[in-house]
Order: sequence, then structure tokens, then C-alpha cells
Amino acid sequence: MNKNNFAPLPPMGWNSYDYYDTTVTEDAVKANADYMAAHLKEFGWEYIVVDIEWYAIGAGSMRNQFQYIPFADVAMDEFSRLQPDPARFPSSADGTGFTHLADYIHSLGLKFGIHIMRGIPRTAAHNHCKIKGSNVTADMVANPSSICGWNPDMYGVRDTEAGQAYYDSLMELYASWGVDFIKCDDICNTNIYPANPYSARHEIEMLAKAIARCGRPIVLSLSPGPALIEHAWHYETYANMWRITDDFWDKWDLLKDMFHRCELWQNHVAKGCYPDCDMLPLGWLGKGFGHEWYTNFTPEEQHTMLTLWCLFGSPLMLGCELTKLDDATLALLTNRDVLSMLTPDCKPHQVCLDDEKAIWCAYNAVTDEHFAAFFNLSDETQTIHCDIETLHVDDEPCAHKDASLTELWSKEKTSVSGSAISVTPPAHGCLVFRVEN
Amino acid sequence: MNKNNFAPLPPMGWNSYDYYDTTVTEDAVKANADYMAAHLKEFGWEYIVVDIEWYAIGAGSMRNQFQYIPFADVAMDEFSRLQPDPARFPSSADGTGFTHLADYIHSLGLKFGIHIMRGIPRTAAHNHCKIKGSNVTADMVANPSSICGWNPDMYGVRDTEAGQAYYDSLMELYASWGVDFIKCDDICNTNIYPANPYSARHEIEMLAKAIARCGRPIVLSLSPGPALIEHAWHYETYANMWRITDDFWDKWDLLKDMFHRCELWQNHVAKGCYPDCDMLPLGWLGKGFGHEWYTNFTPEEQHTMLTLWCLFGSPLMLGCELTKLDDATLALLTNRDVLSMLTPDCKPHQVCLDDEKAIWCAYNAVTDEHFAAFFNLSDETQTIHCDIETLHVDDEPCAHKDASLTELWSKEKTSVSGSAISVTPPAHGCLVFRVEN
Amino acid sequence: MNKNNFAPLPPMGWNSYDYYDTTVTEDAVKANADYMAAHLKEFGWEYIVVDIEWYAIGAGSMRNQFQYIPFADVAMDEFSRLQPDPARFPSSADGTGFTHLADYIHSLGLKFGIHIMRGIPRTAAHNHCKIKGSNVTADMVANPSSICGWNPDMYGVRDTEAGQAYYDSLMELYASWGVDFIKCDDICNTNIYPANPYSARHEIEMLAKAIARCGRPIVLSLSPGPALIEHAWHYETYANMWRITDDFWDKWDLLKDMFHRCELWQNHVAKGCYPDCDMLPLGWLGKGFGHEWYTNFTPEEQHTMLTLWCLFGSPLMLGCELTKLDDATLALLTNRDVLSMLTPDCKPHQVCLDDEKAIWCAYNAVTDEHFAAFFNLSDETQTIHCDIETLHVDDEPCAHKDASLTELWSKEKTSVSGSAISVTPPAHGCLVFRVEN
Amino acid sequence: MNKNNFAPLPPMGWNSYDYYDTTVTEDAVKANADYMAAHLKEFGWEYIVVDIEWYAIGAGSMRNQFQYIPFADVAMDEFSRLQPDPARFPSSADGTGFTHLADYIHSLGLKFGIHIMRGIPRTAAHNHCKIKGSNVTADMVANPSSICGWNPDMYGVRDTEAGQAYYDSLMELYASWGVDFIKCDDICNTNIYPANPYSARHEIEMLAKAIARCGRPIVLSLSPGPALIEHAWHYETYANMWRITDDFWDKWDLLKDMFHRCELWQNHVAKGCYPDCDMLPLGWLGKGFGHEWYTNFTPEEQHTMLTLWCLFGSPLMLGCELTKLDDATLALLTNRDVLSMLTPDCKPHQVCLDDEKAIWCAYNAVTDEHFAAFFNLSDETQTIHCDIETLHVDDEPCAHKDASLTELWSKEKTSVSGSAISVTPPAHGCLVFRVEN
Repeated sequence: MNKNNFAPLPPMGWNSYDYYDTTVTEDAVKANADYMAAHLKEFGWEYIVVDIEWYAIGAGSMRNQFQYIPFADVAMDEFSRLQPDPARFPSSADGTGFTHLADYIHSLGLKFGIHIMRGIPRTAAHNHCKIKGSNVTADMVANPSSICGWNPDMYGVRDTEAGQAYYDSLMELYASWGVDFIKCDDICNTNIYPANPYSARHEIEMLAKAIARCGRPIVLSLSPGPALIEHAWHYETYANMWRITDDFWDKWDLLKDMFHRCELWQNHVAKGCYPDCDMLPLGWLGKGFGHEWYTNFTPEEQHTMLTLWCLFGSPLMLGCELTKLDDATLALLTNRDVLSMLTPDCKPHQVCLDDEKAIWCAYNAVTDEHFAAFFNLSDETQTIHCDIETLHVDDEPCAHKDASLTELWSKEKTSVSGSAISVTPPAHGCLVFRVEN
Repeated sequence: MNKNNFAPLPPMGWNSYDYYDTTVTEDAVKANADYMAAHLKEFGWEYIVVDIEWYAIGAGSMRNQFQYIPFADVAMDEFSRLQPDPARFPSSADGTGFTHLADYIHSLGLKFGIHIMRGIPRTAAHNHCKIKGSNVTADMVANPSSICGWNPDMYGVRDTEAGQAYYDSLMELYASWGVDFIKCDDICNTNIYPANPYSARHEIEMLAKAIARCGRPIVLSLSPGPALIEHAWHYETYANMWRITDDFWDKWDLLKDMFHRCELWQNHVAKGCYPDCDMLPLGWLGKGFGHEWYTNFTPEEQHTMLTLWCLFGSPLMLGCELTKLDDATLALLTNRDVLSMLTPDCKPHQVCLDDEKAIWCAYNAVTDEHFAAFFNLSDETQTIHCDIETLHVDDEPCAHKDASLTELWSKEKTSVSGSAISVTPPAHGCLVFRVEN
Repeated sequence: MNKNNFAPLPPMGWNSYDYYDTTVTEDAVKANADYMAAHLKEFGWEYIVVDIEWYAIGAGSMRNQFQYIPFADVAMDEFSRLQPDPARFPSSADGTGFTHLADYIHSLGLKFGIHIMRGIPRTAAHNHCKIKGSNVTADMVANPSSICGWNPDMYGVRDTEAGQAYYDSLMELYASWGVDFIKCDDICNTNIYPANPYSARHEIEMLAKAIARCGRPIVLSLSPGPALIEHAWHYETYANMWRITDDFWDKWDLLKDMFHRCELWQNHVAKGCYPDCDMLPLGWLGKGFGHEWYTNFTPEEQHTMLTLWCLFGSPLMLGCELTKLDDATLALLTNRDVLSMLTPDCKPHQVCLDDEKAIWCAYNAVTDEHFAAFFNLSDETQTIHCDIETLHVDDEPCAHKDASLTELWSKEKTSVSGSAISVTPPAHGCLVFRVEN
Repeated sequence: MNKNNFAPLPPMGWNSYDYYDTTVTEDAVKANADYMAAHLKEFGWEYIVVDIEWYAIGAGSMRNQFQYIPFADVAMDEFSRLQPDPARFPSSADGTGFTHLADYIHSLGLKFGIHIMRGIPRTAAHNHCKIKGSNVTADMVANPSSICGWNPDMYGVRDTEAGQAYYDSLMELYASWGVDFIKCDDICNTNIYPANPYSARHEIEMLAKAIARCGRPIVLSLSPGPALIEHAWHYETYANMWRITDDFWDKWDLLKDMFHRCELWQNHVAKGCYPDCDMLPLGWLGKGFGHEWYTNFTPEEQHTMLTLWCLFGSPLMLGCELTKLDDATLALLTNRDVLSMLTPDCKPHQVCLDDEKAIWCAYNAVTDEHFAAFFNLSDETQTIHCDIETLHVDDEPCAHKDASLTELWSKEKTSVSGSAISVTPPAHGCLVFRVEN
């Protein structure tokens, strides 16, 4: 099992967090899956991911005080493994976990993912619960000094045989449920320990080993970011996706900053290895946070976001409630031209980045397609001039004199003028072209 | 209650840690108290302090794996307050905590102290135990993100009314036991959070308030160090002692380094306010750590240590097993001349410090006594010359021409020669003089 | 020569920088000195200090491009020692440097000070100029890697015999001129090297040694700040004043922040040892910067500033043009009650500091006077309550029940009410009381 | 002019520094060039680079005190441009700079390079020298706050039109001399400013622009390291080589550490873009440093070094005196099999790295060749087992079952055994295989 084959393209899907926070339910998941199957699947969207706290009894009930209620009850089996909260996921009441929900998702031709927190439940450690496949109990597996800075559920797992047994038993369980994708949190950048932000390194390796042993090709996604560039090789060897940012929301400053993060990671996109720009905060958001709102991103900013994510090669995870999706957003998500850039075959290159603009180009050697994108990062409409000599991916020039250009959002055509391209994207917006030489 | 009156002189006493680690027993405490009353009390030694894990059932039983056994049983009352382990402290079996032991210590004319970890027991939080004087339970008082990096027992307490109620109930209990001294750990420098090393600031204030409310003058000692000089005012306002170093042991490098710490804190010694150089690792040490040893400090280094601690004004806490004290160490601890410098009336001043030597002087305005000390920090015997003009405390000159000098360890006499003092302390040793002008 | 006797009180005076920048002239200095002698001297003001670039030919002539013109001509003698620019200081044209100006200042009963940059002129090094009292030339004395980050005039001096000879020759010259005060810049915190902010440590020692050798009691003031608290002992041993802040100007944020700096340094004020809060930006400022303005500080903020500087024990250096001083500012600077606190006999103590308020008290053991000050750091008028138990300096209580209080700015009287003081200072303002028990 | 075409392969050559320090002469350069032409050229070695201080009169004459004599004379033309010291480079006496030497090198079929320090001579700034093509003089071009921390020759150049004119005039001159390669120092990581280690960013851009304008394809190499990974894109856009380490010498610790640096930069090797592991300290070294020595690297370490540099894709610059080259070293440098990996066509991949070992593989898609290397980083002979599944470059597997393996240093043959490779490299040594499937 080569983990790079588990996701030959950057995963595209939906994640419950941005809309539901900790309150997602089985019905909500199914409704979003239904929508995806009906309207998005044909464009490549396929993952349905249940995010944080699916095991927490009463999650969301003290939202004015706590996002994560400390020391609250969780659903857990006899082997220290968390189970879906049956109140929110009724099909789990028979003890089969997410099996029925996964079956439903699969029946739609989609894939099923879940969020987990790194580690073993604190309550299992304090109650000396059993570990499947080991004589050692949870109190010896849990590291009482390894916690998450913002979530009270777990202790980190020690780098021991019993610790590996725990992760093995977890992946065995998830494989039996039919899980296709795991977003593991508090593992990519363990921000609580500034002096050791990669303190859970061994748990990444243990997870990867457990996945390999379980026999099911489960995609492994690591959060939160920013991932540490000096450990790039380690992420690439053991995981499929890793967050290169803190939580991303619908604020222009965060979007503008993403260009610096993509600059940093641009040489690190490959088949099965995807630096992750985080979820797309589009459409309707935030119900579980207590105040539903429509994305603050303007249409121009949405073009900029989608274009950058696709060109760069980031996974695309929708954060919105799909059943409320408007036509404009749907059009945004189903632009086949733009989505065609989202493949490791299409190698990107940042041509320039400053405070006012960014220029990227890309080349797909398999299809022999060239792309060039011009981002206006300033607050005013501006004209960007670019010498075609500066547009190349490695040795491959992007545009010849007289090349014709098709803008992928508007489908408008233009051409290289002399040895340069001059374009005028709106404030915060972008123009992205297929180049025909 | 002005906390500065609780300890008008730097506290002198015995602490169980350096010899017993987590395994101290009632009998051991009594035996050391007996020794102190018989041989040391008349020289000012008076505190008997029970250090870490007196509440932990089975403490020390997994010493090859853990110093502090994670998720183990603790003795605790119904209000989330830890109690002495009755197996090691039999007199507590009647539910009176340390009352009987404190009574015994007091009957010897000594004072009784205990060690606590900042916070509330993790097990109380996970089991939603009660808080005396509050309707709120321990799960709401405990902060799941605030832990100690090296001890698994507690969670930090939130800065709320219920949190204060918990600390109030704790000090009320300790006062009822007859506790005179509390060494609170994981509070002075919370090293686990390098980005916020003073994260428990509010817990110091809560402790001070609870002590004021309990009506008993309990000395408050904060650990571990290094204390943060930029918060000096805060320590001085709320506590009596604060550790200015990491754990100190019998290694020359640590002793030599202490000169830099004393340099930093030399203007911060005052009545009721004592920067703390940590325990004196003298005599027999380490039984609880699994390998008993006699201090590695040479006699010269021991002179250097005692002289610096007394001149600077640090509390003196013995780490050794008193019942095994040899004559040489006893002589060291009962030198009235040296101990006479240990009072805030005696104001110290570092005259110079470099890699080879340190020179300090001190002036006691109450007794009109002058002192001068010459430390040889090099590895060879050396002669130190010192112009008497450089010896002064504020405006008060230390030595006049023809002043006579009495060395406090050897009682040998010498005098100023011309306008200078020339002395030849051995490697790592010191000469400390009373100056008579 | 004990340097602590050079300035038994925190120096009070005038400095040319805040008004003249690099353009100060002999006439301007004399005019300000005349004013001081006539109106301020009797209140303790006595230093007249010529600040930066008095040696620079054409200083200020490219002000729109450079504050300090790089690689410009300087007046210098044959021994690499800078001389006053004769165009601006005509009395120096006879080769006697500042002798005539110093004589004039002294004739008024005042003291004369100059600013210098740490080091030796770059031009002397590049031209291999001579060093008085040494066979070695300036190129061997100058350290080409030791520069000031914001001023292009000098190279740092190497820690060698020839380097000491240079500083000796410099102080010999200044003593011959009649200099009483040196403000040495780029030496207290060498901000250009963040990894080694005390890199000029040896030059402080060399300066102190050269002053001792020159036979004249020249006060040594070190800039810029913030001084490093971990080197407090070093400043105290070798200098008389050291800046505890970056440049201070007439902005409330900077004034509010000064409370934190005074908190940090409050135990470090002693005779001859003065942490320095920087110049007082009062009255008319900024002509040399190209835009003259009247201080932005409100009358309340001015009270706060003067009260804090006096209570804490900072030197007082006026930055304004004295000849334009208005009555209100003059009254501020000649309040004998407030100025009476400015002596190391008067020991201050910060009682509390938070974002809304600060409370300080002070005790002068020589005069047996008590003071208490209440600063409103918020943007609204507020009533501050203070338990008199919290007001004490070391062991000395500040206020008894029924003590009477005289406010030092308004002369209004009030008294302790019960065991507390309640006062209502205006926003950004303060009330400071003499306490009569 | 696309700078990526200036060096389609990682440059291979000789550099004068490791042997001559600052004392290199024209005769020495010619002698080394003669050797290269005779014995190394056919294997791809072609650059002859004159390193630091070729312009300094008397360089090396105060070696016991200074590596770089401060404020010493330099050879310079009327336009602030440094010239070769005619005493050491006699052919420059006619004012043609390095023209004759470059011609000689070119006549041997080799390429000629020189070292420069970033910036403009300090002496030019202090003497207000002219700038060719500008009315502005050197004092306005030089930034007095921008210096090199370890070399006293230059000031940084301001980001102005006149600054660009200076760099343009410099490259125009070098092009006229026939320079093919510039190693610019103090520009890649400006270590003196820890808070701004990329402070010379604009000077890299100015150099690149000046090279483009001069019309000659001059390879641009940046020193010193470590280069900053977060600016990878900037190096790649403007330079051909950038040092990823501090100075590298013949110490095992430095060589072992290089594996971490190669890990970090492995995705950043491309045509015209070469992360640089620094010079190869082989053979005889150090004459100019005052004590000639034969490399401390063992034969095994030499294999490790050459293999890593070639696999990774670093430029190869010899630091030794070529005329003293022994047969073993010559054999090392002329192993066609090993050198065949040194092309951007051959894409490397680190398979694992820990404290004991490193495994790399590589794939040349043009020649369809596979390589695998096993490095023993421990101090004992060890057997390394490797599952062939882990050996792949992107999607391309490296070795199939029954693949045959040829070790490139020994030419010995072995084969995959089952699904694994087991090899036993000596301590500090390596085995590197061509894999034939």
C-alpha cells in the first residue's frame, strides 16, 4: 500500500465544521451528501467529512461558555475508542459506529471521512480503560503532559508498543466502519508548545503505520497549521494533506496572506502529497457558532480564492451548508476549466509576489496545457504588465508571441501583445488564462 | 495581615525532597524534626517542610518508570482537597489531615510546612467533585488547558469566583491543620508555556487572597524558577519567597551560575520578600531517587554556598537527611557569625563578578556591622586584590585604612593593607570577613 | 573619586535635542542657559547639555533626506578627537573647543554637558589618524564591525590598550574644556545587534576608567534605551544614568508605558545611580526637525509625567526651548513640593499597576516625609480606592488612620477616611499627596 | 537572457579560498587552471574562481591579527570599482583588470569566476568617489548602516537609481574582463542582522538586473548561508546558486549536518537553480590560513560527501590545491558513474533520515536511470535494510524485485533480495547503486 495512491488528485469535498461547529448530525450529513451527489459529484467533488466532537454527548449545549465542554461525557467503547454520539447519529445506536452512515455515503458514490483529535481520551486514561490487543491499560498509554491547547478531550499517545496497539485498534475500527478519510487534529503544528511545535511527530508515524496495517486506503489529513516547512519531508512521507495555515475564514487579510504560504510550499505538491490551504468559507456559514452568515468574500475574492487553490494544488473542502447553496456559488464550484488545473500533473510556478500583485503560471505536461494567472492584491483596479519571458515552469516557456489567451472565469479571449501580457483585474480579483501557443 | 510580617527573616528549615523524593513518611518527618529541635533550632532553623506527593497512594512504587505515576489514586476529601496518604502518614487516618503531625512539630517549637501543586486535582475535575462554599463543581473550576509540564496531578484553576472559593477552602483547611508554610509548585515560572511563562499569575493572587482570608500567617513560597525579573514587583506584592533558579543540586556549575542569579536579584531582598536560591544539597541525599549519596560539594564549595546564600539573603532549606548529619556539616550550619548576615537589615552589594571571582560586601545599619566576601570561582588558588574604595553599600564605605578583618569561617584575623585588601581563597572557595574600622 | 558622588541628586537640566535636533548653536545654548540661570536655577535645575552633531559641518542641511548626513565633513583635531563646528560654535574657532562656552555656563552658576557617540570617528580610522598617547593609529583602534544602526559617524573602539588611550585622551580633552556631564549615545542598548544588545559593555568600562583618570567629576549618562535589566549591576557600577526607554516623546501611549519601565527599575534608584526616563517633551519642540510644535501632552498628562519622574527618581532633562517657556509650564517645573520628592533619600514603592491605574507611595527617611500618588491611566475620570494597609515602603507604613493629606499640585487638603483613601483623578491625570500622620 | 540557461548543470570547478585564503596570486590561479584543463576538464570540471580579497593591497600580511585588514589600501578605479592587486595579479598592471587572466583561462577551454563582496567600497564612500553613468557620488550610494559583520571592505548599496547604476557599471566591467561566474558574498544570509537576515534582498535583484543588462551570461552564486527557505522563491528567480550552509569544512559533524540541509532543500533543485552545499574540502588545504593540512575526511567520508552532493544536485567546487592532488582524490573526482547523477534531469528523493542513517533514491527520466544510496551516519559498521516499496521518486518506483544493483564506487554487483535491499556500509561511509530493473 503506497499512501500516495490513496488520493491521486487533491481531495475535493465537504466538511461540517464551518457551518455546524460541534453540532453536526446524521441528518445534516446525509442532506449535504445528497446535494453533493446530485449537483457536484460529476465535477470531482466526492468527500463528505464529519468534523469535530461527533463523540461528545451534549456538544454545543454550553456554546456561550465553551466551544468544547471540558470533562463532559463522551461515547466510548470498552477499548478506549470513541463512538458517535447516538443522540446525534442515531444509526450508531446499534453499536456499529459510523457503519450505516458510511454505507449511505458510499451508496451515493461518495467517500466518507471523519475528524479525530490526536491521542487517547483523557477519560480512558483516568479510568484505566482497556486497549485492544494489549495488556497495558490507557493510563500507561496516555502521556499526561501531552495535551491540546484548545480542546480538552485527549492526551497524546506515548511512543510505545502499547501506544501503537491503540492506534492500530483505532484504524482497524475505522476501516470496519468504511472510513475513507481521516482529518487528524492537534498533530500538524502543536502550537501549545512553542519550543517544540512538532512534538507529535511520532504519532504521525504511528497513524501511518496503523493505516498501512488496516488494509484500507484511508487518506490522512493533518491539522492545524501552519505546517513547518523544515519538516516537509516528514509530512510527505507519512501523510496525504497537511494544513499550511491557521484556521482560514472569509477575511481578505487571510486570503492575501495565503499567497505567502503558497509561495513557501509551491515545490511541495505531488501526487498523494498536498499542502492544504484549508476549507473554502463560501455560501452560508456559522450556524453552529451561533450566528449564521453569508460569506464575507466578494465575488472577486471568491475567484481569487478558487483560482489560487486550484493552481497551487490545494485540496478543496467546502465549509458551507450545501443545501443552501446559491447559483453563483454553485457556478463557482463547477467551472470545469478552473478545476482542470487541480492535478499534480499541472505544475505551478509563482512568477512574482509583492504587496500589490501576484503572478503564477502552470504547465500540465500530460495534456500540454499552459495557464497564467494575474492576481490584483491591491484595493484598486490595476493594470498588470508581464513580460512573457518571465513566465515559465522550469525550462518550459508558458507563452509565445501571439499566443491566444482564454480567461477561464469569463471565457473572454485576448492575446499576447508583443512580448508582454497586459491585464486589468479588479481589486482583490484575478484573471486566469489558458494559453494557446 | 501584612504578609511581610509572616517571615521577618529569610526562612531556615528542612525540606524532604532532596533525600526522600516522593516517598517521605510521617516517621521520617518526625525524626528530622527531632534532630532540628535538638541541634539546630537554637541557631535559627525552624521550618519542617513535607515536599511533593504526600497525597499520592503508592508514590515511589514505579520509580524506574515514573517519578510521578500518572492517573494514580490520591487521597482526597469530598471537596476536591487532597489529603495525606494514610499509609505513609498514619496519624491522618482519622480524617484530620496533617493536624497531628503539625501539632508534634509545633510541640518541638518548630514550624510546619507543606508542598502543593498549583491547581485542583485532575481526578476531581473528571469526576465533577464538589467545591466547598460553591455550587459549582470541579469540572467548571479546572482549566483543562492549564497543566504542569512534569507532574500529572493537577489542572490550573480558572480566575473565577468559584476558583477563588476553591483556594479559600484549601487555605481554610491548611490553617485548621496548623500549616505555617506553603511551597506552591508549578506557579513561579510555568516553563511548559515558553510563550507565556507567567500564565499562573492570577493563581498567585488567589492564593495570597485566600491566605489573608484564612487568618493564619502562612508563608507563601513559589516554585520552580527561574523567577522572571520583569515580574519582580508581582512576586514581592503577593509572596514571601520565589525561586530564582531551576532545581539546584550539588554541582559546581550550578553553584557558580548562582552568582549571576544573585547579581540579578540583589536589589530585591527585603523583609518578607526573599528571592530563593533553592535548597542546600548537603550531607546525605537522594535515597528516594534510588541511589543515596553524600553531597558532591567540596568543603570549599560548601563555604562558598553558605556564604553566598547568607550574604545575599536567600532562605536556607536543608535538603539532607538530618539524622545522618556529620560533624563537619553541622558545624557549617551552626556558624553564628555567618548566619548573622542572614537578615534584611544586612544589605548586600555585589562589587564585581567575572568568570574568575566575585566580591560582595554588606552593611547592617542596625548593628553597624560591615562584611566583605571574596569568592574564588576559578579552578586554581588565586590571590584577589581589591581596592577598598570599591567596597561600599550605597553611600556607606565598607572598610577604612587599617581596618581589621576577621574571617568568619576560620576566625583568623588580618587587616587592610594600604588602601587594598589582598586575600587568597582556595579554588571554588571563599573568605568572608567582618570588617572592624 | 567615587562616581556616585558626582551627582548626589538626579540631574536636572536642559538638553538641546528635542527642539534643535542637529542644528544647535552657541547662541541658542547661551540663551537657554541665561533663562535657566534667571528662572530655574533656584529650583535645582543646573545642567545645560549640547546634544548630537555639534562637530558636524553642515549638520541639518539635508534634513529632508538625512537626519545624519553620511560621510560628511566633521571638525576633528590631529588626535582623532571631534571638535565643535566653528560655524555654529564660533568661540571654538581658536582651537579651544567648548572651553569658552563652558566658562560662560559656569559663570552663570550652571554645569555644562555634551553628547557624544560611542567610538572613534570613521573618518579617523579610514585616514589612519593619530591617537594621543599611543603609537597605534585610529585604523587599529576602530572596530569596523561595530557601528551604530542609525548614525554614520563612528566605529566602536576595540578593548585594547590603544583603545583605552583614545578614551583617556578624549576625557582629558573634555576635562580641559570644563565638561561636567557626558551623554554617551549608542552604548546602553546597541539595538542594531539584537543577538548582542550589550555589545559595547567594554566601552562603558573604558569610559568610566578614563573619567576616573581625568580627575574631573564628569557625570556619565548612557543612551539609548531600553537598558537591559539583567545588566543593572553593570550600569550601576560604571555610570550615573542609563536610559530605560526608547526615545520618549509627547504621546500618551509612551507615557503610559513608562509606568511599566518604572515598575521594572524601581529598586535600582540610589545616590549616583539613576534609571533615566528620558527628556521631558514640554513647551515648544521640534524646530530642528522642521516643524515646531507645542507639546501634545495635556495639563493632566504633564502632572502625571512630572509626578512619576520625581517619585521614581528619574533625572529631569527639559527638551523645550526655554526662551519660549509659558507660565503654566514654568509653574510645572518650579513646584517645590513635587521636586522635593526627587532625591534618593525618598524611597519609592509601586503599590499597584494595572491597565486603569497606578498607585505609588514613597518615604524619605531623612526628613520623615511620606508621599502617596494616584494615577488615572484610563480615558475617563475615575475614583480610586486604596486600603492604607497596602501603602508602605518596606516596613514603614505610609498613612495612619486620620492622617491628613495635602495634594502637591493643587495644595488642597483631604484626609484618610476610615482605613482607606478615595480620590478621583481626571483622565490621564494624577493626585499626589504629602501624608501627615 | 533567461538566467536558468547560464548553467544548465550544477557548476563544477575550483575555488581559491580553502587553500589560499586571501593570498591567491595569478600564478597560482594559472597553475590550478592548467591542472584542471589537463586532468579534470573532460569530466565536467570547468570553473576557475578567484576568491576573496583579490583587490586588497597587502592581503594576508597581518594574518596573525586579522584575516581582513581593516581600512587598508585597495586597488580601485576612478568609478569606485575594485581592481586586482597588481602585486599579486601582475597582468592587471596595464589597467585591464582580469582580462588577461580570463583570456588565459578561456584559452584552456575553462570558465573564469571571481568573488565579490556585496556593496561599494567604504573608501569610495568616504572619499566621495564617482559612479559611472551617474551624477551622484559614492557617499550617496553607500548605506552607512549596512555592513558585513566579518569583512570591513564595503557598505551596502541603497535601492536607488544611482545604486543600480553602480551595479550596472560593475557588471559592465566584469563582462568586459570576460568574467563567467560571480560569487557574491554577504548577501544570501546577512547574519549580522539576526532580526533581518534577508536585508540585502534588493541588492540581489539589482545584481540580477545588472547581469541581464551587461549581455554576458554570468552565473550568479550567493553566499554565505544558511539560505532562508522562506525566501526560496526569491533565490530561484534571481540567482543560480545559493549557499544552504555556513562555511563547510572537513569535519564529520558538518558533513552529517548537511543531510538535514539537503532534506530541507531537496525540492528546490532545478535547471539554473542550485542550492549549494559549499566547497569540497579535499586534498591539501589551508596554506593561506597559516597551516597547510591534508583533509581530515576519511576515504569513507569522502565517498559520502561526493555521493550526497551529486545525488542532491549541489554545485561542486574544489577547495584544494590542484597541483598537489593525489591519485586517490583524483579518482574520487573523476568517477563518471557518480558524476552522472549530477544533473537536474536526475530527480532525487530522500527516503529516510535519522541519526543513524540516510537513504536517498533518484530517477533520471531522460536516461531512465534509477539510483539508490545508503549512508551510514553512525560510528559503527551497520547493515541497513530497506523495503523497495519505500524507494520511489514521485510515482516512479525505483527498484523491482530481482533488480540488479551496481555499486558506483566499487563497481561491485548485488541484487534486490525478496522485496528488500540489505547493505552494509562502513561507519560514515555509503553505498550508492545504479538499479537495473
